[in-house]
Amino acid sequence: MIFLDAAATTPVRREVLEAIWPYLTGDFGNPSSHHSLGESAAAALAGARASVAAVLGCRPGELVFTSGGTEADNLAVKGIALARQAANPALNRVVISAVEHPAVEESARYLERFHGFSIDVVPVDATGQVTPEALLPLLRPETALVSIMYANNEVGTVQPIPALAELARGRGIPFHTDAVQAAGWLPLDTAALGVDALSISGHKLGAPKGCGLLYIRGRVRLEPVLHGGGQERGRRSGTENVAGAVGLATALSLAQAAQHEQAGRVSRLRDAFIDAVLTGVPEAILTGHPTDRLPSVASFCFPGTSGESVLLELERQGVVCSSGSACAAGSDEPSAVLSALGISREVAQTAVRFSFDAAVTGEDLDTAAKAVCSAVAGVRSLGTN
Amino acid sequence: MIFLDAAATTPVRREVLEAIWPYLTGDFGNPSSHHSLGESAAAALAGARASVAAVLGCRPGELVFTSGGTEADNLAVKGIALARQAANPALNRVVISAVEHPAVEESARYLERFHGFSIDVVPVDATGQVTPEALLPLLRPETALVSIMYANNEVGTVQPIPALAELARGRGIPFHTDAVQAAGWLPLDTAALGVDALSISGHKLGAPKGCGLLYIRGRVRLEPVLHGGGQERGRRSGTENVAGAVGLATALSLAQAAQHEQAGRVSRLRDAFIDAVLTGVPEAILTGHPTDRLPSVASFCFPGTSGESVLLELERQGVVCSSGSACAAGSDEPSAVLSALGISREVAQTAVRFSFDAAVTGEDLDTAAKAVCSAVAGVRSLGTN
Repeated sequence: MIFLDAAATTPVRREVLEAIWPYLTGDFGNPSSHHSLGESAAAALAGARASVAAVLGCRPGELVFTSGGTEADNLAVKGIALARQAANPALNRVVISAVEHPAVEESARYLERFHGFSIDVVPVDATGQVTPEALLPLLRPETALVSIMYANNEVGTVQPIPALAELARGRGIPFHTDAVQAAGWLPLDTAALGVDALSISGHKLGAPKGCGLLYIRGRVRLEPVLHGGGQERGRRSGTENVAGAVGLATALSLAQAAQHEQAGRVSRLRDAFIDAVLTGVPEAILTGHPTDRLPSVASFCFPGTSGESVLLELERQGVVCSSGSACAAGSDEPSAVLSALGISREVAQTAVRFSFDAAVTGEDLDTAAKAVCSAVAGVRSLGTN
Repeated sequence: MIFLDAAATTPVRREVLEAIWPYLTGDFGNPSSHHSLGESAAAALAGARASVAAVLGCRPGELVFTSGGTEADNLAVKGIALARQAANPALNRVVISAVEHPAVEESARYLERFHGFSIDVVPVDATGQVTPEALLPLLRPETALVSIMYANNEVGTVQPIPALAELARGRGIPFHTDAVQAAGWLPLDTAALGVDALSISGHKLGAPKGCGLLYIRGRVRLEPVLHGGGQERGRRSGTENVAGAVGLATALSLAQAAQHEQAGRVSRLRDAFIDAVLTGVPEAILTGHPTDRLPSVASFCFPGTSGESVLLELERQGVVCSSGSACAAGSDEPSAVLSALGISREVAQTAVRFSFDAAVTGEDLDTAAKAVCSAVAGVRSLGTN
């Protein structure tokens, strides 16, 4: 099997399994306990936090471990907006882009339904990018927060985060970015990015499912999403998932240490794969930005097919990929991301996404490209769309 | 080392490690993915859900996997109260007991601060119990929810949940119980308990940290706490922690299958331990209910000491326990639970809690009781309080 659905999830890395094993066995303390077992767990958690801080160029106290990317996005969007509104009721608008993950979009909708916020959606161009010119008019005195993702999960388009964040921060508006797909592939230095908050998910990086984190700049206040015993400096209650935090820290350090090399190598493989598909499949359309895209994502529409039929045929040939976001799989609605890029409903339902991990090889992708050509031709000839 | 702090956390059981291993290694799919790897993960999740449903006597669709007990409590308290208030704005009060875990209490405080709720706190008697007579006058037409824990984490007192739940449900008010400490020790049949919602934590039961679940009766509506991709039937978004869910289901099934036998055996050991301590330590006070208490918890105050000094001396002698809740460890405030029982601030700071897992032996507890006698005597003689 050639697994080309790494944007949905990744296997746990061997180094990560080795790092978390002690915390699943003998070293099982609760970090809040004041005895040797508790102190050992607390030390492991502190070590994980310091390791992540080194990668993100921040202070350990600026990190909140969560149960995953979705919780981190919820905490950023709701937490910042509610804390700012509580301090100043006039702050009742949030800005998100038209291509956000549902974890950001639905958090904003919750603020709208329950807390009187209005949402300003900044449009994207046909490549999926937000331009500074599009963002600027939405930055108002009442804007509590801007949340724009670093890289899109369906089409791989990378946003110009430093330029966008600078606009918001110049007006005193906190800027959050969902970096769930970017982590491992793009630079994550929070100072260089200029962001106030940044979300990461463990299981996209080779850590187990059930762990994530939010970077939150020291001076930015946060109303918790999970209230209780006051763990994580009161910002996220609940007994810490020590193994998850250690696993995430290990996976993130490994991925970011290799990020520059891997991004270059996998980008070249991706470009060859894109060329092979565009050449071999008549009328194939690359979705997203032609160059400002994740090294790990090649996404297409194949007019005259249905995406689901192509996926089934590809899986029969041993190539596993997806129609887009796993979080939206099974929905009959057309992709909101593809709609935002101006792609018609009819074409959007022919979408197929290939997403790679760092272990992908040229040989895998050569095989996959041939399978794509034959699968699309087969589906078209059978009229199974 | 004799580990008598199982109410804070427990080691992962061997059977649980074996059950989760496939989902940390080869079977790593995202349950939302529509290919063989995703379907395998979805099947594992469905199996875990069915297994838990069999234990709780409910339908699989009435279970929501969460990141832990704290998230389950937040989801129950905020989720039910907000959904009911949205349907009927007159429903703006919640009832909690005076001895709730902070995950319930702080969730109620959040409803108060951000959503206009008022909190009615039902008092407990000197044993820590809520009586039906105390609850009744607080059940008003505006009451959106009652949340009363099954068994207390600091003193082990068990509440008369069937009688309390019946009062609430007879008035059409949903009843939630935090069963984090009860699970494994007390019956969990949701129909017999008569509850509408019930929270469980994995790591108190021999599953890993980072997993929990909420039972929510089918007809009870719930506003999510984590919004996003719509997993868990829209009630809890975020990629499911498949290994965590499988681990929780495995641990819960093992614990509840042995619940009756273990509760009887450990209760007898607990009673012998309590007798030995009360006999051997002058002026020792058993806190909580003398008989309606968790088999696994023996909690005392030792006037004339400081709890922290006794703990240090006990750890030096190889006995690991705690002053009370790990979630409140490190706080200088006296325990709110002990205050609610009418215990003075001065006496409350002498509290020591011993909590057992099912592997505890009479020999361990004999050794521990002797250590307690000598530790208290030593601390008293040194005047280190």
